[in-house]
Amino acid sequence: MPEFTTIEQMEEVTAKLKERAVAAGAETWEDRTKTQTPHCKFGEDGICCKNCSMGPCRISPKGQRGICGADAHAIAGRNYLRSIAAGTASHSDHAREILHVLHSTRRDGPYQVRDEAKLLRLAAEYGVKTEGRDIYDVAHEVAEVGLMEFGKPEGYQIFTKRAPKERQDLWAKEGIMPRAIDREIATSLHMTHMGNTADAEALVRQGLRTGLSNGWGGSMIGTEITDILFGTPIERKTEGNLGVLERDMVNVVVHGHDPAFSEMVVTATEVKELQDLAKTKGAKGINVVGLCCTANEVSMRHGVRMAGNFLQQENVILTGVCDMMCVDVQCIFPALPKLADCFHTKFVTSSPIARIPGAIHVEFEVEKAFDQAKDLVKMAIDAYTKRDPNKVFIPDGKQSAIVGYPCEIIINKLDGVTNSHIDELGSYRPAVDAIKAGVLRGAVGIVGCNNPRVRPDYSHFEIMKELLKNDILIVATGCAAQLATKAGLNNKESKWVCGDGLRRVCDLVDIPPILHMGACVDISRILLLVAGIARDWGVNMTQLPIVGVAPEWMSEKAVSIANYVISSGIDVYLGIEPQVKGSSQMMELITQGTRKITGAGFVINTDPKQLVKSIIDGIEAKRTALGI
Amino acid sequence: MPEFTTIEQMEEVTAKLKERAVAAGAETWEDRTKTQTPHCKFGEDGICCKNCSMGPCRISPKGQRGICGADAHAIAGRNYLRSIAAGTASHSDHAREILHVLHSTRRDGPYQVRDEAKLLRLAAEYGVKTEGRDIYDVAHEVAEVGLMEFGKPEGYQIFTKRAPKERQDLWAKEGIMPRAIDREIATSLHMTHMGNTADAEALVRQGLRTGLSNGWGGSMIGTEITDILFGTPIERKTEGNLGVLERDMVNVVVHGHDPAFSEMVVTATEVKELQDLAKTKGAKGINVVGLCCTANEVSMRHGVRMAGNFLQQENVILTGVCDMMCVDVQCIFPALPKLADCFHTKFVTSSPIARIPGAIHVEFEVEKAFDQAKDLVKMAIDAYTKRDPNKVFIPDGKQSAIVGYPCEIIINKLDGVTNSHIDELGSYRPAVDAIKAGVLRGAVGIVGCNNPRVRPDYSHFEIMKELLKNDILIVATGCAAQLATKAGLNNKESKWVCGDGLRRVCDLVDIPPILHMGACVDISRILLLVAGIARDWGVNMTQLPIVGVAPEWMSEKAVSIANYVISSGIDVYLGIEPQVKGSSQMMELITQGTRKITGAGFVINTDPKQLVKSIIDGIEAKRTALGI
Repeated sequence: MPEFTTIEQMEEVTAKLKERAVAAGAETWEDRTKTQTPHCKFGEDGICCKNCSMGPCRISPKGQRGICGADAHAIAGRNYLRSIAAGTASHSDHAREILHVLHSTRRDGPYQVRDEAKLLRLAAEYGVKTEGRDIYDVAHEVAEVGLMEFGKPEGYQIFTKRAPKERQDLWAKEGIMPRAIDREIATSLHMTHMGNTADAEALVRQGLRTGLSNGWGGSMIGTEITDILFGTPIERKTEGNLGVLERDMVNVVVHGHDPAFSEMVVTATEVKELQDLAKTKGAKGINVVGLCCTANEVSMRHGVRMAGNFLQQENVILTGVCDMMCVDVQCIFPALPKLADCFHTKFVTSSPIARIPGAIHVEFEVEKAFDQAKDLVKMAIDAYTKRDPNKVFIPDGKQSAIVGYPCEIIINKLDGVTNSHIDELGSYRPAVDAIKAGVLRGAVGIVGCNNPRVRPDYSHFEIMKELLKNDILIVATGCAAQLATKAGLNNKESKWVCGDGLRRVCDLVDIPPILHMGACVDISRILLLVAGIARDWGVNMTQLPIVGVAPEWMSEKAVSIANYVISSGIDVYLGIEPQVKGSSQMMELITQGTRKITGAGFVINTDPKQLVKSIIDGIEAKRTALGI
Repeated sequence: MPEFTTIEQMEEVTAKLKERAVAAGAETWEDRTKTQTPHCKFGEDGICCKNCSMGPCRISPKGQRGICGADAHAIAGRNYLRSIAAGTASHSDHAREILHVLHSTRRDGPYQVRDEAKLLRLAAEYGVKTEGRDIYDVAHEVAEVGLMEFGKPEGYQIFTKRAPKERQDLWAKEGIMPRAIDREIATSLHMTHMGNTADAEALVRQGLRTGLSNGWGGSMIGTEITDILFGTPIERKTEGNLGVLERDMVNVVVHGHDPAFSEMVVTATEVKELQDLAKTKGAKGINVVGLCCTANEVSMRHGVRMAGNFLQQENVILTGVCDMMCVDVQCIFPALPKLADCFHTKFVTSSPIARIPGAIHVEFEVEKAFDQAKDLVKMAIDAYTKRDPNKVFIPDGKQSAIVGYPCEIIINKLDGVTNSHIDELGSYRPAVDAIKAGVLRGAVGIVGCNNPRVRPDYSHFEIMKELLKNDILIVATGCAAQLATKAGLNNKESKWVCGDGLRRVCDLVDIPPILHMGACVDISRILLLVAGIARDWGVNMTQLPIVGVAPEWMSEKAVSIANYVISSGIDVYLGIEPQVKGSSQMMELITQGTRKITGAGFVINTDPKQLVKSIIDGIEAKRTALGI
């Protein structure tokens, strides 16, 4: 049996780092959680409305309607839709940024096309001519088509054509086929403006459509273009947890979600001149590690090691050896600059989307990016010399992991177990056969953040172990994937916690039982995986014994994701309650009502043990319905 | 002296109607305001954050940062930017809807081009060829260019070129030149997502840019295209207040903001067959009246009478003679269907943007719109026969008014006092000369909603009277313009409350001292008016003794408007506090900080007497600075 890093061990480390924080006079999320609880019940239940200056209003037995007459259902529904819009905007705007980078690529430029084959496939799909053209002309036109997906006045998201016909027909019939991404966002804000939609179902439907514009739009564009720019990930060995920080090296931490700049930072750390400079300062070299989804991105493409997920971001600084933290967008604690000030850490922001007071701001510019990155690495080297040895404490825990399982790699792995004499290569048939035979009971996508509302990472860990034991394969992204990494579950050795069937599959196919598929924007890969399995099985996506789980979700992006997943016919199991509890209609709509529209809905349970049981029951029910 | 309808008289009427509400067992906004006050102080101060599910968090002495570390400035700034984004989305999405109608016009179709000259001017501005082309081909291509303003991947809002060069240069230099409208909205949501911008100034700057994409984008497009479709308004006589409802006629009330469908409803009420049908049911005919900005739209173009502004919407139903209320989008109380149920009133929604439970929903379709409208009028006639005579109470107050002063009409009026032998026609020179001479001290745009936070309409009324007395010309839109109408101030007779100078100007130019310029989307007309005056004066917009006032603003649209007005260099005086009071940085930024960026800012005072004094002082200070 492999030695996992348990939640208790992680908590022990956090407690020790917390002592350093206290000693340094620094505040951490644990302190702030204490001062922010109990939370406002109106807000938690989604029945506080701040959408006009007559209010704020809140629904209570005394006041059952806002001043305009909006009831709990209207208010909770509007708040919910605005969350989806904000989440969609975030994922998709990240994709837009990546498209702009693609648009500026050139053969001798700082950014180049790394996956030409994928670019050519996408060009064909986008109707961009490729014959006899320079690959960079193709890239630029593909970028232009992609950018139009955000604002085209007519038509629907092109990638919806990748979904099974059954889904496409259903989305059209139900009026939730997603139009231009930014238009769905604007429509959502308009519908939720004072004096517009008060009908919860109409709000939920627009939420499904807006979510779809993310899943089969912005996020999928983000994934595709990132692969084209930086290479489609392949299986790579890496390591995870705070132990990847090195005492005797310059530690540069990249954090956020959009890898455009961090790719340059990673490359800059490899420059011999800078490595040499680091050595002249007494360091053994430069160690670049990642946090949050930027970590997932650079780990899958360079094997960069991962320091941890969302709630680990302060811990990294508390080790006293983080010489620089360079962030891009999303999920970055505004608390970090103040914390960095208690240490020698240089905290750098790089995007106009995420300006944080107290940060050194170096605004990412495509043409200058490599020079900017080199300057930052120099700054980090300089900071290294200013470490306070008394503040250094690197917990030694780290785990090895294998990451990088986009659909292409999964297919490739499955090809390895296909009898090429009788079966077609390039399909998910072997996986389908394993599920049909019951060797695998099904598959689960575990995604999402971690969240102080629950014991951080605990739900991820417990649910993962239980699913593996029950012969359920896991694909993971985002902070969930990182928990698997730091716990040691993203590892071929973790087959030992699996049931016999899953273990056999892992051995045969030569994969870990948890497949790291990328960042949260890469949940689009999971959509394509499930769509591909449905195609190769010849059933609808709703019928598959495959579900999504977000045990500890935190961000509005997660609300958007959950909506595109249920729109895709995949049930979503949530370990944190959506903030609509104050509306019986909204609770009914998200758990049952959407089933009548998309065939899927939410199952909500804050107890991970009960949640995992309901997941297994849900998968078994799907199997029974399929007669397997 | 004319007899104004005083606020006291209006309140008396409302009190009488309130008795009818009580008798009918109906609830009104007054009841709901009671149950919703006191409001949550965290929300009022803008320091409650609901942008992720770790929270909600709120800033207090005990908890000075949210769980992520966001402080009061970050939270208030994010909430403020989200308001601007939602307001921008609302105005602009309304414009998009109108563009879609323009795109479907045809010579023999239900919607046609009414102002060909304006279309041709716009075509030239948009770079659309017109020579030798069918006007409808031109219209469709203009619509396509307009629609691209929402989503184009590159470039800035075309109408920004209408602004003085000084403004264009400043917007470019300050990085607030507005890109595609929906993109600014998406950027705003992305910046305010968990873990992104926490810097109040960056949030305020994005607010300015997003506001600009509304003022010199969406709203201006809305105004232009509405004029092209339904005719540029001209001076028209009309009447205002509840007395425009007729006891012995079928009363159809149009309410909302987007006139596309209400234009058809107005036309349908004029159909002889329907008028005859009404007569067979004992009515003397069909009376169509308007509420809110839909009223402003149809009043300026058809002379349709106006029943009132925002807080009058329930009163209309309480008269017991509203046979049908047909609504489109924005500022529609979700309380109305329930209230309509206490009477015989048919309540009809027509837009997918504003679905309200309990309404009859007839979704507006361009091709069927006229038939839909006729069916609705029939339904209203049928409802007329079901009135309960015991519930009928029509307050007899109404005032005559002159409405319809777009820039073209103002120019036209000024041409009338221009000596065409020595002076150029078609300019604002006479107005400039009057201001320079001090006959007029300046001009004020009074705009915005009304709001139960203050004594409704009182601030509008007091400020208007005081400004007129001080020789300050008023242009008004939206609910402010409607207050002027129902009070009797939108009337040439109201020159008698003016100072000598303004009275002389009104006599000479033959205008009322308050010029009704349209709906809230038409504040774009005020921008062009001020830009035109600056051009003809040869000074910058910031230098003019012209300011904006929103004494009783309520909606997120107003927050967006206020931002494009200050971005245009025009100070904005607010009688309701923006909900950022919990952040000293935000308060400083919106009142002072923006002055360093755009040359204008907010002046906030909840006491209308003090507010009007500061307006006059502000205007006089601008005069002094100009040396006049």
